[in-house]
Amino acid sequence: MTDFNDAPLALSMGEPAGIGPDLILQLFARRHAEQLPPFLVYGNADFLRSRAQRLGLSLQITQQTPQTAGLAFESSLPVADIDGMVVDRPGQPNTASGKVVIEAIARGVRDTLAGETRAIVTAPIHKAALYSAGFAHPGHTEFLAALCAGNGPAITPVMMLTNETLRVVPATIHIPISAVPNTLSIDLLLSVGRTVVSSLRHRFGIDSPRIAFCGLNPHASEAGAIGMEDLEIVGPAVAQLQEEGLDVSGPVPADTLFHLPHWRRYDAVVAMYHDQALIPIKTVAFDEAVNVTLGLPIVRTSPDHGTAFDLAATGKASPTSMLAAIRLADRMTRPPA
Amino acid sequence: MTDFNDAPLALSMGEPAGIGPDLILQLFARRHAEQLPPFLVYGNADFLRSRAQRLGLSLQITQQTPQTAGLAFESSLPVADIDGMVVDRPGQPNTASGKVVIEAIARGVRDTLAGETRAIVTAPIHKAALYSAGFAHPGHTEFLAALCAGNGPAITPVMMLTNETLRVVPATIHIPISAVPNTLSIDLLLSVGRTVVSSLRHRFGIDSPRIAFCGLNPHASEAGAIGMEDLEIVGPAVAQLQEEGLDVSGPVPADTLFHLPHWRRYDAVVAMYHDQALIPIKTVAFDEAVNVTLGLPIVRTSPDHGTAFDLAATGKASPTSMLAAIRLADRMTRPPA
Repeated sequence: MTDFNDAPLALSMGEPAGIGPDLILQLFARRHAEQLPPFLVYGNADFLRSRAQRLGLSLQITQQTPQTAGLAFESSLPVADIDGMVVDRPGQPNTASGKVVIEAIARGVRDTLAGETRAIVTAPIHKAALYSAGFAHPGHTEFLAALCAGNGPAITPVMMLTNETLRVVPATIHIPISAVPNTLSIDLLLSVGRTVVSSLRHRFGIDSPRIAFCGLNPHASEAGAIGMEDLEIVGPAVAQLQEEGLDVSGPVPADTLFHLPHWRRYDAVVAMYHDQALIPIKTVAFDEAVNVTLGLPIVRTSPDHGTAFDLAATGKASPTSMLAAIRLADRMTRPPA
Repeated sequence: MTDFNDAPLALSMGEPAGIGPDLILQLFARRHAEQLPPFLVYGNADFLRSRAQRLGLSLQITQQTPQTAGLAFESSLPVADIDGMVVDRPGQPNTASGKVVIEAIARGVRDTLAGETRAIVTAPIHKAALYSAGFAHPGHTEFLAALCAGNGPAITPVMMLTNETLRVVPATIHIPISAVPNTLSIDLLLSVGRTVVSSLRHRFGIDSPRIAFCGLNPHASEAGAIGMEDLEIVGPAVAQLQEEGLDVSGPVPADTLFHLPHWRRYDAVVAMYHDQALIPIKTVAFDEAVNVTLGLPIVRTSPDHGTAFDLAATGKASPTSMLAAIRLADRMTRPPA
């Protein structure tokens, strides 16, 4: 087994009809200029050769293992080849490719759990194209959590969006707004808060992270004039975390909290729902934002965008977020210099 | 009666314990440097003299009318004096001052409705200090709508937040998140959409405004996978407005909509709830954002901040938003040059 510090990153290739494979190929082509750490792509080598050709990239693509990828990375794109049907029709998702897409993620997670690869960076998937191949998860992140849990106790993943300096965590994610108030609970916020603090300590090297919790309602409920949840749920959760010695504050009105000079005072902000977290980070850092999954036994990052079918194979998709996802996965799994 | 174009702006002084009076006094002191249009302050002259002294500003403060204010503005701060008790204790709201605070707004609105003043710019109030003086409105804006309606049919005001280039309109405002889905309706969104289009045409000089509606749920409900409201309410409202010939689109996922290059394509964005509108505008334009009330028979603007009791009488409050509110009220009521 390779020394963990020399192990490559695992990259799952994602939806073949989308821009994920393009970004991986484009970034590999710039690996020297960008000084990228070695990575191993989990996907189908023939498909990747076909896509490279469409993009006009003349690249060597070779089958490798986590052990051989680091050396190969100098001269060729190392692929942990997954046998099977992958259709190269940019922009047109095909359910026939689903099995390979799923298997790529599963093997990348397996090797990362085993310490053969350092972290997994996932390219975007298209859920609808995976259903017939047996995918039954609300999203990519939940699938990764299930893979990590295996037959053990369930893992509740926590999603963090971050650029270089700002971090937001939605306490609830892909549920309707109408379901948010009843999904929030003191227990949920305690769990999210503890996971965020622990991750910032152990994965980001921040010993005493400062966390702010957004209020759920306008003006953080204005002392009960606009709803009770901030008094009955957010406030007590914050108080409990403070009693545990954590540097936590809130509920803070979300509109003033995300004013940049205010936001920057915190190492992370816990928002109550999807848009409350994603609007501010995407407003200020659309291209550079990275999705990090906290609470897993492995490090997982991904770009903060979807498959962008209309840009597939055009070479016009911006690799900025994918690049940031690779760099962050690298930083999070290297010992401090 | 003065020619409307020469009429002053009406400024209501707002909560005496807060920063509103400070900002008015500070801006008056800079009226020449800032080339401010004449304004008439509705409030208590003695109180304003006391506050000016606290701020170390040596200003002339004289009682004036809408007709005399323009000429007086050169040499003294014109005040439409409202007799009554106003306590000058910075940071400590006093219910005794409530009557004058309310009367200042009412007279400013009355004179603006009469065309004696061109528009009203309101300094922040503190609702709790006004209850014992008979204030029974959910907020400042609703009070103005009631004053404008008088004994006629009720007016539904629409709140717009704007800096120089971006405009957002929350379709629902000061209600708990749990009440948002049931408050939204096709009729409400039609009404808001039409008011926004009409205001942009007549008050902002945009002949064919482009409007985007945010989705309510994450990813604009993802085709019904995350709630039905975007399909059942937002989508049909947008379709109806399009049938009326308006340049309206949506529901657009809110997190991608507010990415600046995307946001800038629209003359206004209609958000479904308070934080969905206020988070992005305050994130990018905290100090310069101005609150404009649409749907009234008069022009009303206000700074996008509260009373900031901790800064009252310190001279440290930023007048940027109040200045922007004055300039916008002026622009909205001057004929194009």
